[in-house]
Amino acid sequence: MTLRQAQGRPAAGKVWLVGAGPGDPGLLTVRGLRALESADVIVADRLGARAVLDGLAAEGVELCAEVVDVGKLPGHHAVPQDAINALLVQLARDGKTVVRLKGGDPYVFGRGSEELAFCRAAGVEVEVVSGVTSALSVPAIAGIPLTHRGLATAFTVVTGHDQIRELGGGRDHTVVLLMGVGTLAHAAMTLARGERGAGCPVAIVEDGFGAGQRVTVGTLATIAQQAAERGVRSPAVVVVGDVVSLSPYAPSELAASITPAEPILKGNPL
Amino acid sequence: MTLRQAQGRPAAGKVWLVGAGPGDPGLLTVRGLRALESADVIVADRLGARAVLDGLAAEGVELCAEVVDVGKLPGHHAVPQDAINALLVQLARDGKTVVRLKGGDPYVFGRGSEELAFCRAAGVEVEVVSGVTSALSVPAIAGIPLTHRGLATAFTVVTGHDQIRELGGGRDHTVVLLMGVGTLAHAAMTLARGERGAGCPVAIVEDGFGAGQRVTVGTLATIAQQAAERGVRSPAVVVVGDVVSLSPYAPSELAASITPAEPILKGNPL
Repeated sequence: MTLRQAQGRPAAGKVWLVGAGPGDPGLLTVRGLRALESADVIVADRLGARAVLDGLAAEGVELCAEVVDVGKLPGHHAVPQDAINALLVQLARDGKTVVRLKGGDPYVFGRGSEELAFCRAAGVEVEVVSGVTSALSVPAIAGIPLTHRGLATAFTVVTGHDQIRELGGGRDHTVVLLMGVGTLAHAAMTLARGERGAGCPVAIVEDGFGAGQRVTVGTLATIAQQAAERGVRSPAVVVVGDVVSLSPYAPSELAASITPAEPILKGNPL
Repeated sequence: MTLRQAQGRPAAGKVWLVGAGPGDPGLLTVRGLRALESADVIVADRLGARAVLDGLAAEGVELCAEVVDVGKLPGHHAVPQDAINALLVQLARDGKTVVRLKGGDPYVFGRGSEELAFCRAAGVEVEVVSGVTSALSVPAIAGIPLTHRGLATAFTVVTGHDQIRELGGGRDHTVVLLMGVGTLAHAAMTLARGERGAGCPVAIVEDGFGAGQRVTVGTLATIAQQAAERGVRSPAVVVVGDVVSLSPYAPSELAASITPAEPILKGNPL
């Protein structure tokens, strides 16, 4: 027993702010897995994080930690951010090793930096473990790289919750839209008005690493109608730009309409 | 012995296209580690990939694979892309399990999609394992999130090798510049002319997960001069935008100059 415990005060806990990746336990980082294995409590989001915990369990990885689910469930409200912040601090003060498991990367639309700042301001030790963002890994499973020599030399990541201003760049500047299903029609119209034009290829990848995985490919002119017809639903990642033509899901006439600066080697379907 | 081996033809090999992450073995994915453990041959880039292999060895993880280093070494030319493509196909045809280990993520400025297309066109099985891109993980170790409620709602990743056009968006649209040390003065001047303005905060994070880690913080007006004075060198990641003010390396007058849309909780220094 340490002096501190003898005095009746718990040893200081710690918060690990861990990116769970896109929902596939194989895309969790090694350090993230070690943190989960050492945790007393896991405070998990719904998307990505929950899928990773279920996936680990299915693979026979047993975690000893208590799991607190703070993500939004259908028909329920999410736990407010203030309450999550307070919970992390309270658990750490109780001496717990806490993993705050967030879908994707904690610093990409994850409010991770708010949680870090709150914990630090309260004197709680925090360590950040970066993760594989769904902005790149979900397009990847549909065979879409965010950059490709001769086709795209830059990419922008934005959410559908934000006002989509007319983003700069042409079809060689890839746009990734997260949480963009609800605002897709507006976003596509706005982007079509810019340098990209209405014929710019678009892909929607639904439920990237889940059982409902589905890829819809079209153009800025057609995608909103296609999404409505197919009943496209969240969670989904939308990719806009000529790189979409590299996907094996892209119709051949779309690929033929692209004139790359350098020859493309097109692979076989996945 | 299988029928195929009895007939004198090797069993078909496979190429794993694995993102090594930013150079810290803890940020390798679980699937990436498994692929390395199962590999007969590892074809490794210099940045990120080499550091991960050295890091695994330092932690006592023994890999049985032969390592072929195709990255650029100081004073030597890199192996040309055509030769790398041909090597991957030849190894797989010889029946080898090959890991092509690339720094960061294979689909973010990694030419991974070219290697995938070449292998597929040659009839070689390929599997892509996404990785933690240095575009987000290197800023993270300097305490800089790419997005933060009230400070940034979008980010763009671009390389210094490309022409930096005047990227759209203001200081709430983070710009990450990879391989940007050589062209920093030009990029800063170009971005300062846009909506961001000369006072926009900038951070340079050198050698993110290596022994030479160093963070330099300034503004678009001052950063080129600071970089010259401090002898900033590649590899480095440059981050431009108001999120830089959240870094514990940011001088307090920089943080004070930011007027966020919502209150910021600033943490203690790392």
